[in-house]
Amino acid sequence: MAPLRSWLPIDPRSHFSLHNIPFGIISTSADSKPCPAIAIGDHALDLRAFTAGNGFAALSTIQPHQSVFSESTLNAFAALGRPLHKVVREYLQSVLLKDGPFPDVLEKNEKLRQSALLPLEDCDTHLPLRIGDYTDFYAGLHHAHNVGVLFRGPQNALQKNYKHLPVGYHGRASSVVVSGTPIQRPRGQILVDPEKGPELSPCRKLDFELELGCFVCASSDLGESIAVDDAPDYLFGIVLMNDWSARDIQAWEYVPLGPFNSKNFGTTVSPWVVLMDALEPFAADGIENDVPSLPYLDERGRKSNFAIDLTVTLRTASGLTSTLTKTSARNLLFSFPQMLAHHTVGGCPFNVGDLLGSGTISGKGKDEKGCLLERSDNGKIEVELEGGERRLFLEDGDTLTLSGVCGQGDGALVGFGECTGTIVEAVR
Amino acid sequence: MAPLRSWLPIDPRSHFSLHNIPFGIISTSADSKPCPAIAIGDHALDLRAFTAGNGFAALSTIQPHQSVFSESTLNAFAALGRPLHKVVREYLQSVLLKDGPFPDVLEKNEKLRQSALLPLEDCDTHLPLRIGDYTDFYAGLHHAHNVGVLFRGPQNALQKNYKHLPVGYHGRASSVVVSGTPIQRPRGQILVDPEKGPELSPCRKLDFELELGCFVCASSDLGESIAVDDAPDYLFGIVLMNDWSARDIQAWEYVPLGPFNSKNFGTTVSPWVVLMDALEPFAADGIENDVPSLPYLDERGRKSNFAIDLTVTLRTASGLTSTLTKTSARNLLFSFPQMLAHHTVGGCPFNVGDLLGSGTISGKGKDEKGCLLERSDNGKIEVELEGGERRLFLEDGDTLTLSGVCGQGDGALVGFGECTGTIVEAVR
Ligand SMILES: [Ca+2]
Ligand SMILES: [Ca+2]
Ligand SMILES: [Mg+2]
Ligand SMILES: [Mg+2]
Ligand code: NI
Repeated sequence: MAPLRSWLPIDPRSHFSLHNIPFGIISTSADSKPCPAIAIGDHALDLRAFTAGNGFAALSTIQPHQSVFSESTLNAFAALGRPLHKVVREYLQSVLLKDGPFPDVLEKNEKLRQSALLPLEDCDTHLPLRIGDYTDFYAGLHHAHNVGVLFRGPQNALQKNYKHLPVGYHGRASSVVVSGTPIQRPRGQILVDPEKGPELSPCRKLDFELELGCFVCASSDLGESIAVDDAPDYLFGIVLMNDWSARDIQAWEYVPLGPFNSKNFGTTVSPWVVLMDALEPFAADGIENDVPSLPYLDERGRKSNFAIDLTVTLRTASGLTSTLTKTSARNLLFSFPQMLAHHTVGGCPFNVGDLLGSGTISGKGKDEKGCLLERSDNGKIEVELEGGERRLFLEDGDTLTLSGVCGQGDGALVGFGECTGTIVEAVR
Repeated sequence: MAPLRSWLPIDPRSHFSLHNIPFGIISTSADSKPCPAIAIGDHALDLRAFTAGNGFAALSTIQPHQSVFSESTLNAFAALGRPLHKVVREYLQSVLLKDGPFPDVLEKNEKLRQSALLPLEDCDTHLPLRIGDYTDFYAGLHHAHNVGVLFRGPQNALQKNYKHLPVGYHGRASSVVVSGTPIQRPRGQILVDPEKGPELSPCRKLDFELELGCFVCASSDLGESIAVDDAPDYLFGIVLMNDWSARDIQAWEYVPLGPFNSKNFGTTVSPWVVLMDALEPFAADGIENDVPSLPYLDERGRKSNFAIDLTVTLRTASGLTSTLTKTSARNLLFSFPQMLAHHTVGGCPFNVGDLLGSGTISGKGKDEKGCLLERSDNGKIEVELEGGERRLFLEDGDTLTLSGVCGQGDGALVGFGECTGTIVEAVR
């Protein structure tokens, strides 16, 4: 398929090609009230201004719902459901299309372009949805295996349940923040010297975790299960997610009830939600599971992971940037539909805006690790950076950036932009 | 202190004496829109109607905030902060006081009594606050010890971290429901026969957990810690909480990230929030910690647990009721202020309406166990019930009821009422 062309100049390497149309929440210095937008090339299309300027005039199905574009989160838009997301996305594509059917809506409407088409660099981005509950899974098989080897040795690396169900735990919704939010190094109880007992200390093993996040766009009731075949209807779209982790706090606190303060000091997501429809052309198999699935998890061969190329870079306080990781989002043993089917099999209810995390994504190779715990062998092997610096874990002033993109062709990339955060020193 | 007397007839054994004044959310068949209320004796005082009828005329400090009593949750009232909770509670006490200072407000105001003072039995109760995040702790030392003995033997019953920090995990906020909500037996993956692998099955080890829940009434920012001495200002009030648990699902799923589907199918709270001010006369020491606290957890001897007498009863489908448990809420090693200080020491932010669970409360005695896992020795020792029935775990049709009360004196009880739920059969 030839790439779609827009009348708006778009860099052919932009993550936000006409094939993408991701949704987010923006504000500007001129209008500080956050509102929905899409990203297109190096612009944001402010959907509140677009609606006010009658931009949806040619799309009758959205008329009764236009108030969703005056909200300060995407929850109301998400709640309209996947058929409407598809219609709105395709309409916006057609409005932006070169020689498209609706030139009068925006291309030839100087006034609306002035009010609604804003340079991305002038926009602040905000958390795209109001999150009710956030759950983090552990579906990155190579990550789970590598971490298991570190802590239990190669014979018992994976727990017995691992391939039978998507292992997950409830995370902290209140500390999910948008890309760019500074991350303060957490303090916490750490057992340095077992003779002396734990001390309260700034984390010394601060790590990132390369993950995908998936937002839910439909609710389910207490007692209701979502069948794995129906689960795609409940998925709004995907973002990059960095589940910042304090490994030393985690090691002391996590028995027997799992990670807690080691994970709840911040979780960063990218600002632009790539809709499931935009990802569909990049659907792919994940890791093949050599354990047969129980029927409630059986997708019968449907491709429900995605061929997203993922990159992690680290910029140190010196200003030099090093690539830490290059891998693929295909390195997952379970898909988001499987996670949702498992999460609800006992009747746990969902709300629009709930967030699912994939778990850390690592490939098999040395340069494919989704966290420093794996990469540095839990602080034993130094990672060499540009300019001769080295790292075991993150230092104050480090800026960690995840990026992800689907597709190769110029002018047709479907990307996530960046998910970034800079470490600031702990409070004393 | 002699008990306060009201002009309103109140059963001297009522949990909702004039000393209590707990807050909740009600609706009636006449007015189905939920609104705030207090419980007093066997009545609810509808605070929306009370406000509309100018009931707060004599309390100028609440005038600018009266809209909080038109909300469908207590979040806005809670957010006013503890000084205003105190003023409102004491004002309502004085309005209800026999020979009190404000007879014209309600006692002699037939019209307002008709519109605002409703028989409790005519009221439906609702979840009292909109919960952002819910965290369950594990501060019941005897419970943790008993469960540890069951799974790891008496030598390693408590994990090494247990006395150093309040162990906790993030729970699922979406499945917290109000007393009376039926609880559907969850399905889930269970490993019955390791040779055959896990199966999807209705839970066969369905249990309750006797806990207290504490609602938060002030927010904190990302990166901010709440000092243990300041933590009481962040606490709104306490409810009874039943953290329903599926022990067989839990046993298979919980390594290495903690309980998940075994806990997220329902958590029941009592409808009436007993304010911290009402509990203050019953402040008591918890279990003495023989491990010195790090400074951030050190309450320096402040009594911050409560002498709440707790009872658990089980009514089976036959209609016969048996008492399963009698114990005290003093059986906690850590207090809610310590939990909040620990939860925020790394900078995890809080929102108004967030819920903290104490962990299962068990005493030392055989009849003081806060769950059936302990009581039946994980399904090995039958519990004998009235009428010759027996239980290892909960059966369909069983109604489990927690109750809790402070004080002995007639007419001065500060109680929680009931937290109840009936088990309905699993979906197939
Ligand atoms: Ca993670
Ligand atoms: Ca519990
Ligand atoms: Mg996190
Ligand atoms: Mg629960
Ligand atoms: Ni421009």
